[in-house]
Amino acid sequence: MSILRKDPLSDSWVIFSEERTIRPQLFIHPETRPPMPVASYCPFCPGHESDTPPEIRAHRPNGGQPNGPNWQIRTIPNKFAVLRVEEPLRRHGDGIYDSMEGVGAHEIIIETPNHDSDIVSYPLDHLVRVLAMYRERTADLTRDERLRYIQLFRNYGFAAGQAVSHPHSQLIALPIIPSSVQDVIRSVREHFDQKERCLLCDIVSQEIKDRSRLIFENDGFICVCPYAAKFPFEAHIYPKRHQAYFRAIADEELPQFAQALQIVLKALKNALADPPYNYILHFAPNYSGDQYEKLQKQIADEFHWYMEVIPRVTRLAGFEVGTGCFINPTLPEKAAAYLREMIASDPASQK
Amino acid sequence: MSILRKDPLSDSWVIFSEERTIRPQLFIHPETRPPMPVASYCPFCPGHESDTPPEIRAHRPNGGQPNGPNWQIRTIPNKFAVLRVEEPLRRHGDGIYDSMEGVGAHEIIIETPNHDSDIVSYPLDHLVRVLAMYRERTADLTRDERLRYIQLFRNYGFAAGQAVSHPHSQLIALPIIPSSVQDVIRSVREHFDQKERCLLCDIVSQEIKDRSRLIFENDGFICVCPYAAKFPFEAHIYPKRHQAYFRAIADEELPQFAQALQIVLKALKNALADPPYNYILHFAPNYSGDQYEKLQKQIADEFHWYMEVIPRVTRLAGFEVGTGCFINPTLPEKAAAYLREMIASDPASQK
Repeated sequence: MSILRKDPLSDSWVIFSEERTIRPQLFIHPETRPPMPVASYCPFCPGHESDTPPEIRAHRPNGGQPNGPNWQIRTIPNKFAVLRVEEPLRRHGDGIYDSMEGVGAHEIIIETPNHDSDIVSYPLDHLVRVLAMYRERTADLTRDERLRYIQLFRNYGFAAGQAVSHPHSQLIALPIIPSSVQDVIRSVREHFDQKERCLLCDIVSQEIKDRSRLIFENDGFICVCPYAAKFPFEAHIYPKRHQAYFRAIADEELPQFAQALQIVLKALKNALADPPYNYILHFAPNYSGDQYEKLQKQIADEFHWYMEVIPRVTRLAGFEVGTGCFINPTLPEKAAAYLREMIASDPASQK
Repeated sequence: MSILRKDPLSDSWVIFSEERTIRPQLFIHPETRPPMPVASYCPFCPGHESDTPPEIRAHRPNGGQPNGPNWQIRTIPNKFAVLRVEEPLRRHGDGIYDSMEGVGAHEIIIETPNHDSDIVSYPLDHLVRVLAMYRERTADLTRDERLRYIQLFRNYGFAAGQAVSHPHSQLIALPIIPSSVQDVIRSVREHFDQKERCLLCDIVSQEIKDRSRLIFENDGFICVCPYAAKFPFEAHIYPKRHQAYFRAIADEELPQFAQALQIVLKALKNALADPPYNYILHFAPNYSGDQYEKLQKQIADEFHWYMEVIPRVTRLAGFEVGTGCFINPTLPEKAAAYLREMIASDPASQK
């Protein structure tokens, strides 16, 4: 079972996951660790369904039994979950310290049966179904009133934390609102209080007008290198329509988002020679439950979901780790111009 | 010249350092990058003084000219500084965005003339002089009223961001207070407002009583694996006496701190097979200037400096990057017990 503990200095929660306890001898230096091996056995490949925990949801357009083959997309609980739904939510104090038991969820979305498939080459309608799975899983977990935040993310490449090479995304649902989300809530609330407008709606307007940081635009979405990107070639995707939760994305917006995502990932792949990356969906915290009705309405006005794509091509040194103040050697305007060139020179993006 | 830009979503500043601009082709994946090469030429070694910018301060116990050899410790401006003192502080607005020009300082403290020396083996009195140099440099930069925060840190090993293998520390002085420091200020202020006591003084008391997370203690300092450590084997060193700034460390406390630091670094080295690490000195922001007199007095009561030592033996994946919520596989009580064993089995620590 996991434990969450609150750091009294930074006021942020840390998850201690005993499922993952490793003896100190087993920590290997990141720099000497070999690239991810090509697995001779893959637990996510079709035929190995019984080696994973029973599936939560799957897409089987041609029929078939749960936990059998014939799936196109398959969502399972993470076998090495950092948090589990079955635990009761208990809070503890120890002098000045606070902890709680690790209630939550940790799911794996296996995006395709094809081990060697690359997300940038998925047929668009397949990527749409993967994104629809994101929408469904995040909507479903919202019903659990104990879960305050749901983080959906994808780790690609060893340096970005990918452990199994079969294409997959993950979601972790938490009983707390993480500190970086609280920072964003503070910002969007302050902006709304002052102007009665959504901060990200204002950012979208300014970026469309300015165009210097714009990478791509379609009817529903814009892709930009953000004004104060923490990482070189960091890219954000913003829905044009105000919506606080990814679960609110409309059916007709799904292919638009899939197109934007694929174009950005492909441009980064071409620009940076297939870099490791993380993408992360940021949306409003979960205030389900009657007692939070007012808060839920308020956050729906203030928050605007977005996706962050972070190529992991630099190391984090002591300064960044210590201050949370990042040093970026590449201005976003330069990165965006370069990515626009990548898109323009790719015949597949010209459609 | 550098530019600082504020991220409107997280309300944190990012430094764009054009001095370090790299073409996208030059980003190399962290996982495929070779370990740091043994330099055949080292700009920090004695005899190469003219290849660095002119020194700011040096320790030459046997005499000698500035920028000549015969030094034991040498502080120089970083040739590739992310911020420079000579720039005027100008602020700009661009629609909803804020930026300022990159005034600040970026210094390198070359800790020893011996290229192959290891900080855990420095004679104690030499490490004391290195720490006295930290104290002197941070005190000196405090006099510049434009500088709001001074971050002193050490990167050891490639994965921790070390670029030159000659032993050195760095400091970066900023015209802003970084977001992670603002988080700590919020926490210590809230605690002080409620209890009229320093939060870290309370933590020190509880850790000394509890002992389960204690690694080492002497008259002036305790070393612990903190209650909510973000990283496996993360260690903190706290002064027992309340002091907001490292520059306030007393002469008689310097050898106590040097001993604590060396014992912690040696224990980590033995426990984790010479891991890459960052150490970071956290102290109160700089409120010099008459208009801040009240704030300066207030923060001196609230803030308590500490050193954070972070072994870099895990990767940061999408979840941590996205949420700021860390997953730690090792409970600090277990890490502390292991480090105590390391210290107990090292004859040099038995003095």
